[in-house]
Amino acid sequence: MIRVSILGATGYAGAELARLLSMHKKKVQFMHLVSRSFAGKRLCEVYPGLSESLPVLEALDIDRIAADSDVAFTSLPHGASKEVIPALYAKGLKVIDLSGDFRYDDAAVYAKWYGEEHSAPALLQESVYGLPELHRSAIKAARLVGNPGCYTTCSILALAPLAKHKLIDVYTIIIDAKSGSTGAGREPSQPLHFCEVNESVKAYKVATHRHTSEIEQELSKLYGGEIMLSFTPHLLPVNRGILATSYANLAQKSSAKELVSLYKSFFAGEPFVKIYESGLPELKHVNGSNNIAIGLAVDERLNRVIAVSCIDNLIKGAGGQAIQNMNLMFGMDETEGLPKNAWYL
Amino acid sequence: MIRVSILGATGYAGAELARLLSMHKKKVQFMHLVSRSFAGKRLCEVYPGLSESLPVLEALDIDRIAADSDVAFTSLPHGASKEVIPALYAKGLKVIDLSGDFRYDDAAVYAKWYGEEHSAPALLQESVYGLPELHRSAIKAARLVGNPGCYTTCSILALAPLAKHKLIDVYTIIIDAKSGSTGAGREPSQPLHFCEVNESVKAYKVATHRHTSEIEQELSKLYGGEIMLSFTPHLLPVNRGILATSYANLAQKSSAKELVSLYKSFFAGEPFVKIYESGLPELKHVNGSNNIAIGLAVDERLNRVIAVSCIDNLIKGAGGQAIQNMNLMFGMDETEGLPKNAWYL
Amino acid sequence: MIRVSILGATGYAGAELARLLSMHKKKVQFMHLVSRSFAGKRLCEVYPGLSESLPVLEALDIDRIAADSDVAFTSLPHGASKEVIPALYAKGLKVIDLSGDFRYDDAAVYAKWYGEEHSAPALLQESVYGLPELHRSAIKAARLVGNPGCYTTCSILALAPLAKHKLIDVYTIIIDAKSGSTGAGREPSQPLHFCEVNESVKAYKVATHRHTSEIEQELSKLYGGEIMLSFTPHLLPVNRGILATSYANLAQKSSAKELVSLYKSFFAGEPFVKIYESGLPELKHVNGSNNIAIGLAVDERLNRVIAVSCIDNLIKGAGGQAIQNMNLMFGMDETEGLPKNAWYL
Amino acid sequence: MIRVSILGATGYAGAELARLLSMHKKKVQFMHLVSRSFAGKRLCEVYPGLSESLPVLEALDIDRIAADSDVAFTSLPHGASKEVIPALYAKGLKVIDLSGDFRYDDAAVYAKWYGEEHSAPALLQESVYGLPELHRSAIKAARLVGNPGCYTTCSILALAPLAKHKLIDVYTIIIDAKSGSTGAGREPSQPLHFCEVNESVKAYKVATHRHTSEIEQELSKLYGGEIMLSFTPHLLPVNRGILATSYANLAQKSSAKELVSLYKSFFAGEPFVKIYESGLPELKHVNGSNNIAIGLAVDERLNRVIAVSCIDNLIKGAGGQAIQNMNLMFGMDETEGLPKNAWYL
Repeated sequence: MIRVSILGATGYAGAELARLLSMHKKKVQFMHLVSRSFAGKRLCEVYPGLSESLPVLEALDIDRIAADSDVAFTSLPHGASKEVIPALYAKGLKVIDLSGDFRYDDAAVYAKWYGEEHSAPALLQESVYGLPELHRSAIKAARLVGNPGCYTTCSILALAPLAKHKLIDVYTIIIDAKSGSTGAGREPSQPLHFCEVNESVKAYKVATHRHTSEIEQELSKLYGGEIMLSFTPHLLPVNRGILATSYANLAQKSSAKELVSLYKSFFAGEPFVKIYESGLPELKHVNGSNNIAIGLAVDERLNRVIAVSCIDNLIKGAGGQAIQNMNLMFGMDETEGLPKNAWYL
Repeated sequence: MIRVSILGATGYAGAELARLLSMHKKKVQFMHLVSRSFAGKRLCEVYPGLSESLPVLEALDIDRIAADSDVAFTSLPHGASKEVIPALYAKGLKVIDLSGDFRYDDAAVYAKWYGEEHSAPALLQESVYGLPELHRSAIKAARLVGNPGCYTTCSILALAPLAKHKLIDVYTIIIDAKSGSTGAGREPSQPLHFCEVNESVKAYKVATHRHTSEIEQELSKLYGGEIMLSFTPHLLPVNRGILATSYANLAQKSSAKELVSLYKSFFAGEPFVKIYESGLPELKHVNGSNNIAIGLAVDERLNRVIAVSCIDNLIKGAGGQAIQNMNLMFGMDETEGLPKNAWYL
Repeated sequence: MIRVSILGATGYAGAELARLLSMHKKKVQFMHLVSRSFAGKRLCEVYPGLSESLPVLEALDIDRIAADSDVAFTSLPHGASKEVIPALYAKGLKVIDLSGDFRYDDAAVYAKWYGEEHSAPALLQESVYGLPELHRSAIKAARLVGNPGCYTTCSILALAPLAKHKLIDVYTIIIDAKSGSTGAGREPSQPLHFCEVNESVKAYKVATHRHTSEIEQELSKLYGGEIMLSFTPHLLPVNRGILATSYANLAQKSSAKELVSLYKSFFAGEPFVKIYESGLPELKHVNGSNNIAIGLAVDERLNRVIAVSCIDNLIKGAGGQAIQNMNLMFGMDETEGLPKNAWYL
Repeated sequence: MIRVSILGATGYAGAELARLLSMHKKKVQFMHLVSRSFAGKRLCEVYPGLSESLPVLEALDIDRIAADSDVAFTSLPHGASKEVIPALYAKGLKVIDLSGDFRYDDAAVYAKWYGEEHSAPALLQESVYGLPELHRSAIKAARLVGNPGCYTTCSILALAPLAKHKLIDVYTIIIDAKSGSTGAGREPSQPLHFCEVNESVKAYKVATHRHTSEIEQELSKLYGGEIMLSFTPHLLPVNRGILATSYANLAQKSSAKELVSLYKSFFAGEPFVKIYESGLPELKHVNGSNNIAIGLAVDERLNRVIAVSCIDNLIKGAGGQAIQNMNLMFGMDETEGLPKNAWYL
C-alpha cells in the first residue's frame, strides 16, 4: 500500500488526480489532501460528485505530510512548487511535481522562459522529466519527477520518432495546438468566463508560451542537436482535451505508411500510445483515458509531414501521467488504476 | 466469471455498457457483441478510444449467444427487443433489456402508449422493473429485467419518498426534465445535427412522451393509488446527463429539512443515491458516475416541494443501471465495476 | 434625432443595447457611454467587434449627461439605479431603467423581495412597467420606464392571455425557466467559469428568485386578483436565450387549438409576438431578434396547459425591449431599428 | 430596387443570405427563393425565426427566374451550379455563385482538385473571383462572380500583404484553420451529429482540401509566382466562425509593428478589414458581422510571422460577401445592408 498526499488538491489537476487515485484504491492510501483555500472542508464540497470518503482538506504542514506519506504529488502554481519540494525531498519522500518547476535540465533555460532564477538548481539536477515513453528507466530510479504538462506531452510524443530518426528538417517544425479550457485552471477571470469562451476560439501567448522550451529541450535531446520551433496554443470551448497539429518538412521522401510503421516501432509495447494506421484522432477518442493517439498524413506536394496527436489534458497531460510515474517509481504495473477507454461521449 | 453478450452494442447505450463492463473485467467475460450495421468490424472502429481487445462485432445469431452466454443485454430499438427476448429467455439466459418493452406490469398500458399490442404479454408478467432502489429483491430473483430508462429513473427516484409517504397531492405532480443529446441516440437526423442542437434548447413530445406511463406506474404502486402527472422532456446542448425539476403541492406543511431527513431514511444504505443536505445537484455532479443526486426545496408561500434530481443518462439511466441489475441477479456486490465518482469536468 | 446616453455601457446588457442602437443610427445619436471600470477606453476595446465609431467611455457625470441627452438608459446593478435615476429624472430626461428598481407598483413588494427599503418610492409611482404588449399607452406617456428583465418578459407574456381571460386555476401556475449564461452578467465568478457551466445545467434560487414578484405583480393585474406562483430558474450552457415552460390547470376544458386562437387575438397586431399554430419554439427561433415566440400544448388527461415561450434575453429581455420602449416614448415606429429575424445558427 | 433570386435558399449559406438580404430591404426585392426539397413551403417553416414575409419556396424554373430577376445567387452544392449558371447567364442575369465552380482561372486546376472536367470552361473565363479587397474593379464590371468560400477568404486576406510584398519565403506557408460546423452544411450525417461534434475537435481532409487550390491561385497572383502551401482544416464545436493561424518564414527581419503598418496600408480604406495594432482576433470579435479581423505576431527567435485571422463563415465567408459583391456589381454603397458589429455574445 502506497501512502500518498496531494498538495494543491482543489485545482482542476489536483482534483482529477484524486479522482483517478481513488480508482487505484487497492494499492493506494490517501494520507493528506492539502488546500490553502479550502482547508477544513471536504473535497466533495468543492467538487460535488467526488466521494465523501476522501480525507478532509488540510492546510499545508510539511512535517505532517512527511511523517506518514511515501509520495507527495505537488499540483501547485508555478513557483510555489519550488518552495515546498526541497523540504519534502529532504525528508525522504518521493515527489511528483505537476508544475513546470522541475522539468528542466538547465536552470538557465528555466530562468529565460520563466523570468526568474530557479530557487533550487541543485535539485533540478536530481529531477527526471516524467515522460515514461522517453525516460522510463530514469523515472523508475527517481525520487523527484517533473511531470510534463499537457501541451508538452502531446507535442513531444507526436514528434519524437521524427526527431530521433532525423527524418525532418528541424528548422521547419510548427506545432499548432488546441486545448480545452480546464488547461487554463480553476481560477475565475474575464477571459475564462463562460460567455467569453463559449462559441469562440482564440490563439494566445503566440511565440512566447513557456511550454515551447520544454518541447525544444526534449526533442533536442532525441535529435542530438538544438531544435527551435514554433508552438502556438489555442483555447477551445470544450472542457477537456488537447489536439496538436504538428508540421515539419521531411528530410527525405517518406509515405504516411512508412511513417506509421516507424511510429509503431518507436512506440512498440507502450501501453498508452495509439498509432492510427489510417484516419486521425479526435479529442473524443482520448478524453477520459490516459492514452495519447497519433495519426499521420504526408503532403506529397510539399514533402511535409502533418502529425495529429490528442490527449486528455487532465489525465495523460496531468494526473494520469503522474500516476503512471508513481506506478513506475514504486515498481508497480505501469497501467495500474489508469483508464484505458475513452468516454467518447 | 459471468459470460455476457450485448445485442445492440453500437448504439450509444450499448457502447457505454461495453465500456463500463470492460472495467468490471475481473468478473465479466465478453462473449458476443451484436450489431446489425457493423458486423465484422471492431467496436473500436465505431468508437475509436474503446479498447481493441473487445470481441469483433457479429450479426445476430441467437443460438450462438445462447450457447455460451449467461446473460444477454438487449440494447435495441423499442419493438426489436420483443422479437428477440422470448427466444433468449426460452433458452435459459438471463436477460436485461434496455428498451421499454419489458418495463410494464400491464400490457394494456404498453399498448396505449406505444400504439401497438405487446407481442409477448406472458413474458411481461415474468419481467421485473429494474430499479434496484425499489425492487431489489425481485431483481435478485428475476431472469428478465426491464431496465428503466433515463428519464424514468431520474423522475421516479426523485418522487418515490413523497409518493410512498403520501406527503403530496398527487394531482399536482409536474416533472420538467432536461436531457443531454445522447438520450436521443446515435442515428443522425436534422433535429440532432450539431448546429441545430448547439446553443439552443427545446421541449418535445409535451404531454405525450411514453416515459410518462412508466413513471406513473411506479409512483402509483408506491402511493397505493393511481397517479397521473405531467412529464415534459427538453433537449439540452450537452452530451450527457438528465436534470429533472419535479413539483408537487405538499399535503401538509413540511420543511425542506424534514423532507431531506425523510429522503435520507427512505434511501438509507443505497450505494448510488446522494441526498443533498443543502444545495441542489447539477449535471456535473453525477456525469460519469452511476449516482443519482437529489436536492429538495420547499416554497413555503405555496406549500410546494421542488425536487431536483440528476443522473448520467448513459450510466444510471442505461448501462450502469443494467450492470447494477446484473450484479444483483448474479449475487455479486451491487456496486462492482460501477463508477462512484463523477468526472465533474 | 434622439440624443441617447447609456449608463453601464460595458455590462452585457449595456453593450448589447449599444450594438442595437448603432443599427438605429438614422434616428439616434450617441452622447455618452458611461462605465465606471473602463472610463477613457473605447467600447470596442472591451468588446472587440463593436464599432470604433462609438464615443469614448466616460465616468459618470450626471450634469454632462443631462446637458445634452434626451434619454438615458440605465443598465446598472440593482440598487445603483435608484441612486442615479432621481437626479436624471429631476433634470427632465426620459429614463429607461434596465434594473429591477423601477418595476414595482408597490414599494413594499420591492422591500420584501430585495431586502431593503426602496430609496425613491415617490418616483416608483411615476414609473411605468415597460412591457409594451401590456402597457403601451402608459409607456408612450411615461418619463420613467422600468424595463422588464428577461425572465419576467418571457414568463408574463406566456401566461398573460390565460390570466386575463381567467382560463386557469391561478393557484397551479408553475414556470420552469431556462436561461443562457449572459443572463448572469459579465462579472467573473467560480459558478460562471467556463468549465463549470459547460456540459452542465443547474437550478438556482429555487422559490426565492426576485423576478417571481414581478411576474406575480403583472399577472395579478391582468387577472384582477392576487396570484402567487412557482418560478424556477435554471442556468444553461449557452450564451443567449430564455425558454420558459409554464404549467397551469385549465379552469375549463380547452383545446390547444382554442388557446392558440385566443393567444392570436390577445396579441393581434403585436409586431414582436409570434404565436405558433403548431409546434413549439426553441431558443434558436428567437435568438438575435426582438421576438417572443409562444407555443401551446394541452394535456387532456390532466386538463393542464403547457405554454412554451422563448426570447433572446439580451434583446427582448433587455436592450431590444428598451429600444422598443424608447421608440414608443418618442413617438417613433415601435419596431424601428429592432431585429425581426433570428440568427437561427 | 434590385430584384434578387436565391437558388438553394434552404442551405445554411442560402438561408443566411436571405436573412441578410432582408435587412437590405430598402434596395432589394425578393423575387424567387428556390429549394428542391422544400418547394411549396415558406423559408420560415424551415428556419423558424425568419420572417414570414419572404416569398414561398419554389422548385427551380430558370425561365421564371430570368423573367423578373436582376441577379441570381446560386448557393448550390458544387457541380450543381455549373448546370444552372450558364442558362441564367445566357439570359442576361448577373450571377453570384457561392459554390466552388466559378472561382478558378484555370479549368485544369479545377479538374485536378475536383476530380472532374469543368463543364463550362468558357464561362470560367468570364467569371471574376469575388474577393472585393483584391478584385474590386473587376467585380464591378462582372456579370458572373465566383464568391469565395469561408476558408479561402479568411486565408487569402491574412497572407495577401505578405505575398504581394514578397516578405515571406513562400515555400514555408502553413495555414492551420479552424471552422465552426455550419461550414459543413445542413445535411445530417454521423460525423456532424450533435454528440459527435460536441466537446471534440478534429482535423480533416489534411493535405487534400480543395480550398487549398483557391488560396494558392490567389496568393500566387499577388506574389507573381507559383505558391504551394499547407492548408489544414479543423472542425470546431461551435456554430459559426473561422479562425486561421497562418505561418511563414520572413524573407527578412520584420517586427510585428512593421507588419501591422504594412497591413494597414495594404487594406487602407477597406470597410470590412480590421487590422489589430495589438492582440489577436477571436471568433467572437467577428461573428455576426461581415468583418475580417487580422492580428500579427512575429517569432523573433525563428524570424517567422504568425497571422491570425477570423471571419464569420456564413457572412464574410458566404452570404455577406455575396451581398458585398452585389453592391459592387450594381453600383451601390459596398457596405449597404451589411452588419458591421459582431454579436460578441
